[in-house]
Amino acid sequence: MNSKVITAGALAIGDELLSGRTRDKNIGHLANALTHQGIDLKEVRIVSDEQDEIVAALNALRERYTYVFTSGGIGPTHDDITADAIAAAFGVAIDHDPRAMSLLTAHYKAREMEFTPARQRMARIPHGADLIDNPVSVAPGFKLENVYVMAGVPSVFQAMLENVLPTLEGGAKMLSETIHCPFGEGTIGDRLGEIQKSHPETSIGSYPKYDGEKFFTQIVLRARDKKMQNAAIEDVKNMLVEFNQD
Amino acid sequence: MNSKVITAGALAIGDELLSGRTRDKNIGHLANALTHQGIDLKEVRIVSDEQDEIVAALNALRERYTYVFTSGGIGPTHDDITADAIAAAFGVAIDHDPRAMSLLTAHYKAREMEFTPARQRMARIPHGADLIDNPVSVAPGFKLENVYVMAGVPSVFQAMLENVLPTLEGGAKMLSETIHCPFGEGTIGDRLGEIQKSHPETSIGSYPKYDGEKFFTQIVLRARDKKMQNAAIEDVKNMLVEFNQD
Repeated sequence: MNSKVITAGALAIGDELLSGRTRDKNIGHLANALTHQGIDLKEVRIVSDEQDEIVAALNALRERYTYVFTSGGIGPTHDDITADAIAAAFGVAIDHDPRAMSLLTAHYKAREMEFTPARQRMARIPHGADLIDNPVSVAPGFKLENVYVMAGVPSVFQAMLENVLPTLEGGAKMLSETIHCPFGEGTIGDRLGEIQKSHPETSIGSYPKYDGEKFFTQIVLRARDKKMQNAAIEDVKNMLVEFNQD
Repeated sequence: MNSKVITAGALAIGDELLSGRTRDKNIGHLANALTHQGIDLKEVRIVSDEQDEIVAALNALRERYTYVFTSGGIGPTHDDITADAIAAAFGVAIDHDPRAMSLLTAHYKAREMEFTPARQRMARIPHGADLIDNPVSVAPGFKLENVYVMAGVPSVFQAMLENVLPTLEGGAKMLSETIHCPFGEGTIGDRLGEIQKSHPETSIGSYPKYDGEKFFTQIVLRARDKKMQNAAIEDVKNMLVEFNQD
C-alpha cells in the first residue's frame, strides 16, 4: 500500500481577487484535481501584485510543501510581475527565454500580429525553469524546482494544470465518503465526537447546511485505508439509526 | 479628505475548502464589502482544521493588518476548533461564556430542544471577547481585539458581517473605474505601462478575458483621489481611440 503523503500549497496572485472584482475560480478547481490525485492541499494564500508579498508567501509555501502552484500575473502588462517575483524568491536571473521567444514569435507571425515588447514580456522566464505548455494562448507557464507557475485566466490555468498533473507524484489517495444526516450538528455533535475518538485513522468532518428553515449536516469520512474508513462509516450509520428511533 | 489607509486580512478555516468539497463563498463577499467601505483587503489565507495552523496564520495576519476576519469552525462538533485556536493565539483562557449560554439556553428552550454538550460548545468564547450577533441561527461569533470570528455557513457569515461592518473604521474609499478594451493585453501592454508610470497615484490593473475565441481586456483604474483617477482615465481612453484608428 502507498502510504506516502504528498502535500501542496497554492498561491493566487492579483489585486482583483482582493478587491472583490474577480472571484477566484482556480483554487477550488486545483483542490479537486489534487485530491483526486492523492495530493493534500494544505494551505492557500491570496496576495496582491506586489513583489515583496509574492516572494514572502512563495518562500513560506515552497519550503513547507511538496508542491506549490501559483495562478495569475504572467501576462504582458506592467502589473504582471509574477515571473520576476519568482526569480527573486529563488535568487536566480530572469530574461527572455529562447524557447518561449521561439513559441511566441511563431504564434504572432502566423497571425500577422506584431510581437510587441509587451508580448515579449510573456517570454520572461527565470533561469533554470522548464516551460509548461499553454494550448489555449501559447504564452507558457513554467516550473522551477517544486513551484508551478500558471496563468490566472481559468481556462488557461486549467489547461496548464492538465499538462502538469500527469507529471506529479501522487500519494496514497484519500478516500472520501459523504453521509447525509437529517439532524443538525447540535444533535449529533456529542456522539460524533465519540466516534471520531474511536476511529483516529479516519478524519470525520461535519458540515452544517442550512436550507433557509432548518439545519442539516453532511458528514464526511476521509481515510487512506478502506477498511478503517468502512468501520467508521458503520458507526456513523448506526448513530443515525439510533437518532431516527428517538 | 480622508486619506487614512485601513487594511484587512482574511482567514478561511476548514479542511473542506482545501479538499475541494466546498467552494469558498465568503472571501469574495468579504472582499466586496470591505472595498465598498474603503478598507483594503491585503491578504487571504485558507488553512485546515489544525490548531497550530490556525494560530500561526492568525498571528501573522493580526499583527500586520488593521482588521482580521475569520470564517468557519465555530459550530458544535469536534472539528470546530476555531474558538480554542483563537484563545491560544491570544494566550487567553476560554470557557462557556455566560452571555452566549444565556442566548442559546433560551433558544433551545423555546424550541423544546435539548441543550446538549455539543451545542454548549458553541458558547465557548475566549475571555475578553465581545459577541457578534447571529440573527440566523443564534450561536454568536465574537470579536477579540482586531479579530472578528464568524461562521463558515455563507448565510450566517453574511449576517454576522452585516452586524460588524457599521462598527468598522472605513478608510478613504478606493474609487474604481473599469474600461472595456477590445484589444488583447499584448497589443496595449506597452502603452498602458507608460500610462501607469505617468500616473503613479492611480493603480492601473489590466485583466485579460478570453471568450473562447479571442482575448480582450478589462482595464481597471483605482485611486483614492477622483481628479487623479480622471486624468489617468482620460489617457487610457485616448489610447483606445489611437488603437481604433490603427
